[in-house]
Amino acid sequence: MAKRFGDRLRLRQGPVSLADLETASTPGFKSNKAAGRELLTELAPALSDLQERLFAEGRTGGNRSLLLVLQGMDTSGKGGTLRHSVGLMDPQGVRITSFKAPTVEERKHDFLWRIRRGLPEPGYIGIFDRSHYEDVLVARVHNLVPRSTWMRRYATINRFEQQLVERGTVIVKCFLHISKDEQRKRLNARLEDPTKHWKFNTADIDERALWDDYQAAYEAALEKTNTDEAPWYVVPGDHKWYRNLAITRLLVEWLEDLDPRWPAGDFDVQAQKARLRQG
Amino acid sequence: MAKRFGDRLRLRQGPVSLADLETASTPGFKSNKAAGRELLTELAPALSDLQERLFAEGRTGGNRSLLLVLQGMDTSGKGGTLRHSVGLMDPQGVRITSFKAPTVEERKHDFLWRIRRGLPEPGYIGIFDRSHYEDVLVARVHNLVPRSTWMRRYATINRFEQQLVERGTVIVKCFLHISKDEQRKRLNARLEDPTKHWKFNTADIDERALWDDYQAAYEAALEKTNTDEAPWYVVPGDHKWYRNLAITRLLVEWLEDLDPRWPAGDFDVQAQKARLRQG
Repeated sequence: MAKRFGDRLRLRQGPVSLADLETASTPGFKSNKAAGRELLTELAPALSDLQERLFAEGRTGGNRSLLLVLQGMDTSGKGGTLRHSVGLMDPQGVRITSFKAPTVEERKHDFLWRIRRGLPEPGYIGIFDRSHYEDVLVARVHNLVPRSTWMRRYATINRFEQQLVERGTVIVKCFLHISKDEQRKRLNARLEDPTKHWKFNTADIDERALWDDYQAAYEAALEKTNTDEAPWYVVPGDHKWYRNLAITRLLVEWLEDLDPRWPAGDFDVQAQKARLRQG
Repeated sequence: MAKRFGDRLRLRQGPVSLADLETASTPGFKSNKAAGRELLTELAPALSDLQERLFAEGRTGGNRSLLLVLQGMDTSGKGGTLRHSVGLMDPQGVRITSFKAPTVEERKHDFLWRIRRGLPEPGYIGIFDRSHYEDVLVARVHNLVPRSTWMRRYATINRFEQQLVERGTVIVKCFLHISKDEQRKRLNARLEDPTKHWKFNTADIDERALWDDYQAAYEAALEKTNTDEAPWYVVPGDHKWYRNLAITRLLVEWLEDLDPRWPAGDFDVQAQKARLRQG
């Protein structure tokens, strides 16, 4: 494993070509599915411990938090990441927000209004299952707003994220990168399993027809919002075990950098124990 | 196990005397800690499966959801329940809301305003870590509002919960019942472990001095809001393994009653597979 695992997935500055980024590779882990799952299990206690320390810090005046942004095409594995990586942490300290097509109320406000409402409080790990990036992705591909509007949003997003970072939120943005072939396999698997039919929508295939447009929209979004404050990670997603492992490793690494410590109590332990003995 | 496990914990109608309800008993499970934990692990797949079916139903037009309300004195195990019972489910379909002292904004609205914002959407399992019951508990014990105000709230709560049930939300209200001695042990354990100091607040011992007032406030709340639509369960909480097991079993039982089925797709599978082959 490299000194910093994240460097292997961190998107370089400059023009982005998703076609040149491998979807089936497993950077940093030369292992197979079984070994990958075992590694994931081994990471769980560290993740859980770090998350609890951050939570403890937040409960005692700390202002730090972490926001994991999950983006990717249909079937890229956002749900699986929630179950297998996010699910390793104590749910008490985790807040997941899933962003779907905006509601009537949400559409009355600027596009970041609903995003602000889902931000993690101090000590929490917030997870965005889709995010404000949809407003430069689906909004762009389907011309939901004029070009001039979505063009302005990249800079708005950068300013917004910079403010978040300044207020103590670490932002980890992950693009789950799958190939078009892998998406076909996964959609087909959903069609073949009646217990997965609820995940399938005929519109998914309409969207798939716009694959190239979406890739172009992602390339623009990744390039224009890949800031030092809130960098993008491109996570190869064709191998589910790798995706779960990589995102977990990223979380552990970022939390290790934050290095949250068990807060010292602001009370005299012996005096409190004496009070406790009295009644 | 009884035909219906929940009947063992369900609070009877009429006056409530918490002192007469055992805190160290283990109704329905004649086992020890090790066996209890094993049973919990065995329940996990069923809980996870039922939860995913409910989630699937919610994503395909269903309106049903489940709300688990957790109440109890400090150290009664709300956090442990989140980790060990709620944590067994896919976090994608679970939404936890922790209610603390109301914020300035929350105090501008009626006491149910913030509660409504935390209600589970269709298909979700919502968890309230504390709830609107604080407004007839701490509010009553500390005279935060006039007596006439909190007295009115019991009926307001009953109407509110009835509306929720009519709209498709099953409400499972659990009072985690520990003894005063057990609380002393747990507070003492927090004081003795520096990694637990963040959980301790000197105000916890001030609150403990009001134990009898809180028990009386709980007795009134449990009695006045123990409706057929939204009954109270008193969960003996001195044994943590039992508490986790009992709440998990309650969730499984309620979800079994809901009996959510994998939704049928509203599409022609072969036609969609054919479309998928084309691109």
